[in-house]
Amino acid sequence: MDTIEVIRAKRDGGELTTAQIDWVVDAYTSGGVADEQMSALAMAILLNGMDRREIAAWTRAMIRSGERMDWTALDRPTADKHSTGGVGDKITLPLAPLVAACGAYVPQLSGRGLGHTGGTLDKLESIPGWRASLSNDEMLHVLREAGAVVCAAGSGLAPADKKLYALRDVTGTVESIPLIASSIMSKKIAEGTGSLVLDVKVGSGAFMKTTETARELAETMVALGTDAGVRTVALLTAMDRPLGLAVGNALEVEEAVEVLAGGGPADVVELTVRLAREMLAAAGVTGKDPAKALADGSAMDAWRRMIAAQGGDPDAPLPRAAETATVEAPASGVLTRLDAYAVGLAAWRLGAGRARKEDPVSAGAGVTLHAKPGDPVREGQPLLTLHADETARFERALEALDGGYAVGPADVERPPLVIERVTAT
Amino acid sequence: MDTIEVIRAKRDGGELTTAQIDWVVDAYTSGGVADEQMSALAMAILLNGMDRREIAAWTRAMIRSGERMDWTALDRPTADKHSTGGVGDKITLPLAPLVAACGAYVPQLSGRGLGHTGGTLDKLESIPGWRASLSNDEMLHVLREAGAVVCAAGSGLAPADKKLYALRDVTGTVESIPLIASSIMSKKIAEGTGSLVLDVKVGSGAFMKTTETARELAETMVALGTDAGVRTVALLTAMDRPLGLAVGNALEVEEAVEVLAGGGPADVVELTVRLAREMLAAAGVTGKDPAKALADGSAMDAWRRMIAAQGGDPDAPLPRAAETATVEAPASGVLTRLDAYAVGLAAWRLGAGRARKEDPVSAGAGVTLHAKPGDPVREGQPLLTLHADETARFERALEALDGGYAVGPADVERPPLVIERVTAT
Repeated sequence: MDTIEVIRAKRDGGELTTAQIDWVVDAYTSGGVADEQMSALAMAILLNGMDRREIAAWTRAMIRSGERMDWTALDRPTADKHSTGGVGDKITLPLAPLVAACGAYVPQLSGRGLGHTGGTLDKLESIPGWRASLSNDEMLHVLREAGAVVCAAGSGLAPADKKLYALRDVTGTVESIPLIASSIMSKKIAEGTGSLVLDVKVGSGAFMKTTETARELAETMVALGTDAGVRTVALLTAMDRPLGLAVGNALEVEEAVEVLAGGGPADVVELTVRLAREMLAAAGVTGKDPAKALADGSAMDAWRRMIAAQGGDPDAPLPRAAETATVEAPASGVLTRLDAYAVGLAAWRLGAGRARKEDPVSAGAGVTLHAKPGDPVREGQPLLTLHADETARFERALEALDGGYAVGPADVERPPLVIERVTAT
Repeated sequence: MDTIEVIRAKRDGGELTTAQIDWVVDAYTSGGVADEQMSALAMAILLNGMDRREIAAWTRAMIRSGERMDWTALDRPTADKHSTGGVGDKITLPLAPLVAACGAYVPQLSGRGLGHTGGTLDKLESIPGWRASLSNDEMLHVLREAGAVVCAAGSGLAPADKKLYALRDVTGTVESIPLIASSIMSKKIAEGTGSLVLDVKVGSGAFMKTTETARELAETMVALGTDAGVRTVALLTAMDRPLGLAVGNALEVEEAVEVLAGGGPADVVELTVRLAREMLAAAGVTGKDPAKALADGSAMDAWRRMIAAQGGDPDAPLPRAAETATVEAPASGVLTRLDAYAVGLAAWRLGAGRARKEDPVSAGAGVTLHAKPGDPVREGQPLLTLHADETARFERALEALDGGYAVGPADVERPPLVIERVTAT
């Protein structure tokens, strides 16, 4: 087969045959298709799209490029959750042990943050001793020990996706629903989970800015999972404001532990419980109430076992940033807006995120919120606390927040956290 | 400036600023923008276009990436011609010495064939001893000696275009009018010619299949040349059938020599004379009749001086292919169709062209035509003679010709050779 012919077919608005997709993904993985050819194809896909058959074939080809894990020998069903990424989205941290406490195994391969959204592995790494990299045997051991494991994907899983994702990141070809959907689902299907709940974020702090594009992504991913035999459901959830009151690595771990202790911000608790119910239902586990497992400490027990099994000390004090600065309410009234993207960008600039994959992150850096949209505020009260290792970072973080919040006289509508539920058609 | 930001701007349908274009072309030339980034941008340009300002900026940036030649110290005006490439298009061979014989200097930087269209340098290299690579001083020497020089562009001329052209060739991003126009015109403007006639081919054997796209390319290039101070005019000419009766390297040199000797096929003579008149008019040379210069031998004299000045022997026998095969007329009647692309593809497969830039070409290979569309033919008479160095090549060449010609009962319309003239608006 000829690379240029495949590129031309998509460029000219045609459909790629399954044979063409198999060939081009295999050849890219093995080096027969060059980076500059794949990036041209990725741009043609971004601009001209792929239909459902093409996306399914593309996903299968990426799965086939590596190993596929298998948990069917375990004595309980498996369930996983994937979020498309948001600001303050620490839900995996309380959710994985919570679902484990309710009777399903959670084998979650997770990622690191890039840009203004945080990464689950970066957050967990702020716990002294905790290790993200596990062998398949270690993963199985943690799963049996704690019921849940959150770790980095090994290099053997969907290597085509790994290579393509790095390429898309530097060639302006990230924002393509077919490529996003196939990237996420190839990893999740190869991970071997029996059921999957997708949390597709919508709003300024999310990748998908509108409900329409988020729904399209959700429907595409649910179809891919279902076709591959994974019981898959998606929720579209709000990401116009940050989730919870903490944005950062250690700051979010702290908040997750509060939730596991039966407290924590209402929105984090609501989404954690809702996603747990969806995961248990998809896994076929009945008669367990996640809210009760948060209240009775069983989720906290699973969390402590999970952290300890991966080398972490659940009792160790978490790192804190050396410096803080406060953003005060500019007037009295109601906080009418606190933009997720502005807060995410500020946390990033404070050191919580990375600009390049190889950059380190600061464990303590981030933003804590003292009010959420709809809350009454008094002029001069602390609205946000910024945390950083160096004071020099505050200026650019404050720039990011400029125009990102507003105080007004009237109350604001509080839109629902869960916007829509998407199931296989 | 940020590469991904530039790619995204074009990907999302925006216009690139002149500063963005300058930056990205410079950075690509120096290696700061990677091949996989430029190919993604090229695909975005191909699919979303560039307006006239962007194309002009892109062309200027490519010219500025290298040296610019200057012939203004010469005692006569300079004129050049560029063809977008066709099947049997040997026009440069008789045209350059003809225009020189009429009083203008012709400093032509030419190219090699790729795909089904031939390259002027490949044709001239079938002449024993002839050298395509000249230094700038040698080029000036040949120009003074013969009035015309046809040679390869040095590596110092528009290096950005050289690098980008090689990239587009392997990434399915050749077929973009903005990129084709800026590639051609950056080289022609950097070459330093005072006037330029563009022969934009239209039809199955050409890059542009329709008059509309050919006109758009012609208008774009004429505007670029005019803006850069080069007197530029374009002709759209027919390439639905091969030009002349010979397709190949040495075969076309032979036909060019026939034209210089006052003979040759009518269409080759017509186009050569018409283009010579356009070049002389654009150069401001008056009172010279190119038809007369063909008849009186002065064009042939210039040819012989030009070939000799570049090391070639104008009297040496030309290479011939070892093997021939004949395609006979399948019926008696009128040859209603002889498709340029089919004949070009056959010649390519016979060895006249190359699949990769580094491949050699066969000097003797090609196709000779014994009839042109509109000519009466008798069943069994030779229609085409195929020439190749090995008989093994005939089978795939015959496949290329399958369906490429037809004999019918009625006469066919003979469309004009020159379809349209495009001047600056």
